[in-house]
Amino acid sequence: MLLSKLVCERTKDAPQDAKIKSHILLSRAGFIKQVAGGIYTMTMPCQKMSQKIQNIIREEMDALDGQEVLFPVVMPRELWELSDRYNTIGSEMVRFKDRNNRDMLLGMTHEEAAVHLANHIVSSYAQLPMMIYQIQTKFRDEARARGGLIRVREFTMKDAYSFHTTKEDLEEYYYKVFNAYNRIFRRIGLKNFIDIKSDSGMMGGSIAHEFMLLTEVGEDSIVLCNDCDYRANMEVAEGKINEAKCEIEPLQEVFTGDDKTIEEVCNRLGKKAEFSCKAVVFAVKGNSEEVVIAFTRGDLEVNEAKLKKVLKKDIVPYDGGVSEIIACGNIGPYNLDKSIITVYDKSLKDVNSLVIGANKPEYHYTGFNFKRDMPDAEFYDISKVREGDICPVCGGKLRIENGIEIGNIFQLGVKYTKSMGMTVAAADGTLFNPIMGCYGIGVGRAIASIAQESGDDKGLVLPMTVAPWQVHMCPLRIDNEDVAKKSYELYDSLKKAGVDVLFDDRDTAAGIKFNDADLMGMPIRIVVSPKSLANDEVEITIRSTKESTRYPFADAVEVVKKLIKDELDKINAEVEKKCN
Amino acid sequence: MLLSKLVCERTKDAPQDAKIKSHILLSRAGFIKQVAGGIYTMTMPCQKMSQKIQNIIREEMDALDGQEVLFPVVMPRELWELSDRYNTIGSEMVRFKDRNNRDMLLGMTHEEAAVHLANHIVSSYAQLPMMIYQIQTKFRDEARARGGLIRVREFTMKDAYSFHTTKEDLEEYYYKVFNAYNRIFRRIGLKNFIDIKSDSGMMGGSIAHEFMLLTEVGEDSIVLCNDCDYRANMEVAEGKINEAKCEIEPLQEVFTGDDKTIEEVCNRLGKKAEFSCKAVVFAVKGNSEEVVIAFTRGDLEVNEAKLKKVLKKDIVPYDGGVSEIIACGNIGPYNLDKSIITVYDKSLKDVNSLVIGANKPEYHYTGFNFKRDMPDAEFYDISKVREGDICPVCGGKLRIENGIEIGNIFQLGVKYTKSMGMTVAAADGTLFNPIMGCYGIGVGRAIASIAQESGDDKGLVLPMTVAPWQVHMCPLRIDNEDVAKKSYELYDSLKKAGVDVLFDDRDTAAGIKFNDADLMGMPIRIVVSPKSLANDEVEITIRSTKESTRYPFADAVEVVKKLIKDELDKINAEVEKKCN
Repeated sequence: MLLSKLVCERTKDAPQDAKIKSHILLSRAGFIKQVAGGIYTMTMPCQKMSQKIQNIIREEMDALDGQEVLFPVVMPRELWELSDRYNTIGSEMVRFKDRNNRDMLLGMTHEEAAVHLANHIVSSYAQLPMMIYQIQTKFRDEARARGGLIRVREFTMKDAYSFHTTKEDLEEYYYKVFNAYNRIFRRIGLKNFIDIKSDSGMMGGSIAHEFMLLTEVGEDSIVLCNDCDYRANMEVAEGKINEAKCEIEPLQEVFTGDDKTIEEVCNRLGKKAEFSCKAVVFAVKGNSEEVVIAFTRGDLEVNEAKLKKVLKKDIVPYDGGVSEIIACGNIGPYNLDKSIITVYDKSLKDVNSLVIGANKPEYHYTGFNFKRDMPDAEFYDISKVREGDICPVCGGKLRIENGIEIGNIFQLGVKYTKSMGMTVAAADGTLFNPIMGCYGIGVGRAIASIAQESGDDKGLVLPMTVAPWQVHMCPLRIDNEDVAKKSYELYDSLKKAGVDVLFDDRDTAAGIKFNDADLMGMPIRIVVSPKSLANDEVEITIRSTKESTRYPFADAVEVVKKLIKDELDKINAEVEKKCN
Repeated sequence: MLLSKLVCERTKDAPQDAKIKSHILLSRAGFIKQVAGGIYTMTMPCQKMSQKIQNIIREEMDALDGQEVLFPVVMPRELWELSDRYNTIGSEMVRFKDRNNRDMLLGMTHEEAAVHLANHIVSSYAQLPMMIYQIQTKFRDEARARGGLIRVREFTMKDAYSFHTTKEDLEEYYYKVFNAYNRIFRRIGLKNFIDIKSDSGMMGGSIAHEFMLLTEVGEDSIVLCNDCDYRANMEVAEGKINEAKCEIEPLQEVFTGDDKTIEEVCNRLGKKAEFSCKAVVFAVKGNSEEVVIAFTRGDLEVNEAKLKKVLKKDIVPYDGGVSEIIACGNIGPYNLDKSIITVYDKSLKDVNSLVIGANKPEYHYTGFNFKRDMPDAEFYDISKVREGDICPVCGGKLRIENGIEIGNIFQLGVKYTKSMGMTVAAADGTLFNPIMGCYGIGVGRAIASIAQESGDDKGLVLPMTVAPWQVHMCPLRIDNEDVAKKSYELYDSLKKAGVDVLFDDRDTAAGIKFNDADLMGMPIRIVVSPKSLANDEVEITIRSTKESTRYPFADAVEVVKKLIKDELDKINAEVEKKCN
């Protein structure tokens, strides 16, 4: 490919809304161009990279006997009503009426379509296990599209659906996909990623894992143990906390004046925050008068995701007003209005003496003891794990890192096959609902993750397995007849040898060419110049290590082929070592 | 691939709405499954076939220096207002509001997105010519989706956009794409297709061609000359007609009673239909009181597409009422209410004596002569070409065939670059709007066309270049240990040799296996049976010719490889012969 013809503009500055490295570099290198919020055109380099990633995904899915199909982007309401998701998914799903006034939607995932296809076709246990997948455009109307390709509204996704006879069979297959995902991410060049247990959210299953690239710009918080393999998304992470030990005291009402916050009240009373009880007020979503108060130890934070799970209801921050109790502040568990929904965190259970609100202005209680004063209270895990908390598995220390989700896998169970009436005959003729798993990878997110992890201050640094071109040729002084002749000769020879080459055919300064080559990030740069040709040489630079070496011109093709092979072998060896 | 695991159901009957061969066969072979009207899931065989077609398209586009990109499916209203298509395209374009109440649409073509991308990036003539293309899902809300993959609402399409400095450069490139299209259709195995000049419709350009598969189920009518290369879509076809020669007569009002139709009136008056004048009444779309009357010779039909072009307005059939003139019937050009829009076909111009309506009940005129009686009348070509009319190029005889559009190419001109303000600097520094071409192929339509053209009474007959699998293996009596062992051995050897094999591993009757193999249409069938193995042989059958031959088992892999190579060579030789 000749760079002069490439529809891909390199720029010094990134768009104003580009705050993170991957967004900045992919924009500056001309890989993406925004069309609307969260909607991008991918130029040729980005699309080539996308296709290379897709092919790696395909190879791994096919190796698991996956059958590539194509489901529709647009689906009718009726199909999504069978699973009840038409009504339960919010405004992130696009709905519209077709010209005949029928309700249609843009598919966000394709469980319904997968069951619709498999239903009737798969009628016997002997046809199981079976996995179908597709690579397709999806649209999710994200409220806060941002970060370039990290959180978009339209994206290319691989989504796979497996069907099984037994839970054991699903689990066995699930961990094969788990392994394939590790292979995929290693093969596309990602390094610092982990798998973690996750909340299965709207998918409605039980066991689920997310694959996370660890990066400080990640929007997910991940809890990891320094000493063992324990890791989990903050939403579901469990941790043990230091026990708050103190003597039992009598329950006593005390004047606390205008002091309201945990800090103010504890300071006044000479107590540590861990001997106090924090109240956080929410309302049930869609009913602002249905108030929920979550209580946790004063030094902890409420984890809303855990709280929602306990409540089995969606909640929003309480917006004030309505209840007198809440208006007066100083909320505590003791003698609280029974009409309010309360949830107590497990951290409170064994504290002998707690400072709690007295549910009236200017007063708190000290010496509150749940076992003695509210023996019927039930306790749940609704608090956030903190840096330094104790690992629930090994007792080691937990740390918190940020991550970007790069893939997810779910054990769905029979949610969809049951609601959609898909049955299969067992060996004994009885009918059962097949057990499903589903498995997703966003291709654009993978591109952004590579840019985020590997990019440096000069630009993208693309892995050999997915770089749009393996070689970026920079002939300097291409107006020099010898340089032009030799460069095009080498370009043709490389192409004949099956090497993907981007050729900077512009008659422009070396600095501009080198900056563009660094910015675009192809793994190997070849420089041909009057100076190098004087010694019958070319200069070859590795983008990732910045190492430059001169080689005889005549050896250039062989050297490049070997560099490519060595790099691919290295990545494959890493895959075999870490993923089997 | 093991057939027992393939999610693809073969059936004896097709869905009730399947009326044409391609729809029936693709449904019966389990290649497609309907999800909603005009919306299908493609199963693995269909998706594999689609990908092979896509790769052939890619190769031909890349050979023309095409750059594959990916535009968004969902686009904002503002982008499509720049070209005014947001308002001019009807309800076939899906529009919806996003969660922030912004107007969005599903792209039907991507001229706007292509100019949006190229604008600013391409700033100098030196970057031209340039072509970008994508292969992507599109949604068009067709009023009458039908015919399986022939006329769908959601489909995969290759759409390409080229940009040029001069009209000559566009034309040169346009005919390169023209040639590439011929190559693509030959390479995917189509035979009986032609290119024809077409109306560029909503694309708004001037020169355009459609590629048409000639088939009796086609919904387009195509006019072809038996003696020369002339061919055109009925919508724009021109033909010469036999001159209607007669003497000049005086204009005379005659009583015709209740006779109304051309046939009745001409019978009463003893005239041939070619000496009469037919009136067809329309109304301007959206304004039923704006009446249009088209006049043509009594033996011809009005071509609505041509009439619209003359009027530069959309029209609908007149629904009666309103005008007295029209209510009374016997409509003629003479002394007609001037407020009515009239258009006269060129066939009327030179007829010396015409029977025409007298614009009152029970009367006509005879002897009407436009030159004498209405010397100001202007004439246009608004009549349909008929079988047997005279070729406008060579004077030969014209025939009419039906066809399915399988691709189209347009010389767009500057419509989009001008309206969207894309300018590029010429060599002398002056700015100009690049001249565009655009080029489309529907992948699903190509699959249906192959099924339509090659399928026989037993099922699909798939060309070697695009068949999902090259070989369909049918081991008979697979419960026989020797058959099973040898069959799997051959299956593995074929796969190792790079052959794509579908393996019918079911323990089922020969008849069922053969029927399925015939229905699914892979080019080569291999039968291994106790009988064939007794002679150490396999039986190889070519799907298209039905020829069966026995070969030594040990030679099977080599024979298959040679059969595949010969078939591919044959197709390529045909391409080189016919398309260069």
